[in-house]
Amino acid sequence: MSGKVYAKKHLVKYYECDTTKTMTLPMLVNIMVHVSGEQSHELGVGDDVVNGKGLSWVILQYEMKFERMPEFGEEITIATQAMSYNKLFCYRNFKVYDANETIIGSVKSTFALIDIEKRKMARIPEEIVAPYETEFEKKLVRTPKPEKLTDEVKTADYRVRYLDIDRNQHVNNTKYFEWALDTLEYDFLTTHTLEYVNIKFEKEVHYGNIITSEVSLTEIEDGKILSAHRISTNGTVNCELNIKWHRRNE
Amino acid sequence: MSGKVYAKKHLVKYYECDTTKTMTLPMLVNIMVHVSGEQSHELGVGDDVVNGKGLSWVILQYEMKFERMPEFGEEITIATQAMSYNKLFCYRNFKVYDANETIIGSVKSTFALIDIEKRKMARIPEEIVAPYETEFEKKLVRTPKPEKLTDEVKTADYRVRYLDIDRNQHVNNTKYFEWALDTLEYDFLTTHTLEYVNIKFEKEVHYGNIITSEVSLTEIEDGKILSAHRISTNGTVNCELNIKWHRRNE
Repeated sequence: MSGKVYAKKHLVKYYECDTTKTMTLPMLVNIMVHVSGEQSHELGVGDDVVNGKGLSWVILQYEMKFERMPEFGEEITIATQAMSYNKLFCYRNFKVYDANETIIGSVKSTFALIDIEKRKMARIPEEIVAPYETEFEKKLVRTPKPEKLTDEVKTADYRVRYLDIDRNQHVNNTKYFEWALDTLEYDFLTTHTLEYVNIKFEKEVHYGNIITSEVSLTEIEDGKILSAHRISTNGTVNCELNIKWHRRNE
Repeated sequence: MSGKVYAKKHLVKYYECDTTKTMTLPMLVNIMVHVSGEQSHELGVGDDVVNGKGLSWVILQYEMKFERMPEFGEEITIATQAMSYNKLFCYRNFKVYDANETIIGSVKSTFALIDIEKRKMARIPEEIVAPYETEFEKKLVRTPKPEKLTDEVKTADYRVRYLDIDRNQHVNNTKYFEWALDTLEYDFLTTHTLEYVNIKFEKEVHYGNIITSEVSLTEIEDGKILSAHRISTNGTVNCELNIKWHRRNE
């Protein structure tokens, strides 16, 4: 049984958009996570309560499908719902609707709890998930692994900045998208739009770290392009992601 | 005579805050500009109309005073009002209120119009400013220049990224704050809070540019600290700013 649905309207603002007036992936994910945080807060299991137990939510994976990305000035609705949980993982879905209630985006995500002091995964306490009214399902949900990079790779280095760090003293998840997207060419980004994203977070990066962002591009069916990305620090993989792109309609 | 006031409530979200759960300066400025954009749109002189005349608003200067910065989860109100205009400049004020209607921030700003093709300042057409119901005042408003850097300077370089560019095909103004703030130490930023900001934009930077961000720190009255910043590209100054800081209450 899936849990309670929580939904919120959101007006897409200019600073959430790129130069093509399309909402950026990092901003859309920020707002999704904000909406799920609001649900938790309203159910009495907000971050203050979770942190009070020495625990903190981390996101392990997102798999996203988009009919199209929201545009500047559009009013979208973001709905979220906890789907199920097991000993270590919680599964949560998001849907993005346009003003006509058409689904333009569907996202599956995997969350886990970490012990803040030990920085290690913790067992999920019943009292933290009960309010979402979802069920314990012993079996793990299988999630697809991002495709590996091909031979032809482009690389750029980024230093983790002060404003990349969020209130959990770690790098905000959406920064990985920024490092990944920035390796692609301006001409590519302004002429293509994304339809599928699969991102798997492996290991946290920290303030001051120099991260390496690598990308390879592969042509797939119907002239579509798959960009495979790897974010790493001194050879340790922090995050892998894939994005499927198609040419933007003019 | 000052013009019509337009105000909007805003809930401070986690992704708008830094690691101390305080709203970041770039996000606050993004939202201020969004609110003034909404006013323009409601008055029938939104960016679509202005751009339709081959013109675009640019911000030349902000002078800001803060009693305190907004905090995560707080509901603030941002009010904005056009104050006066002359042949080339428009002056607009912003106020930030907390939930008790106490003013926590006051901002003065100078806007100008540029001809999009020529990238040069344009004379302000009467029909674009009339709806704000403010008055033409021939005399220029005097705005203070940011203090220059002292001898002891720290430097860092940044490359302008794809997501730094906004729908006007130039770097979003708030990115200059990010480059400036990032030159300060983590320990300084987490133990100090800003009370005054004066920023003057001189010359646009563009996608792919490598910008140099320089800073010097000077102790001023009452143990307060002034950080003087300069953003430049190959020796050309793009922006100068000052921030006055005091130690954060624990």
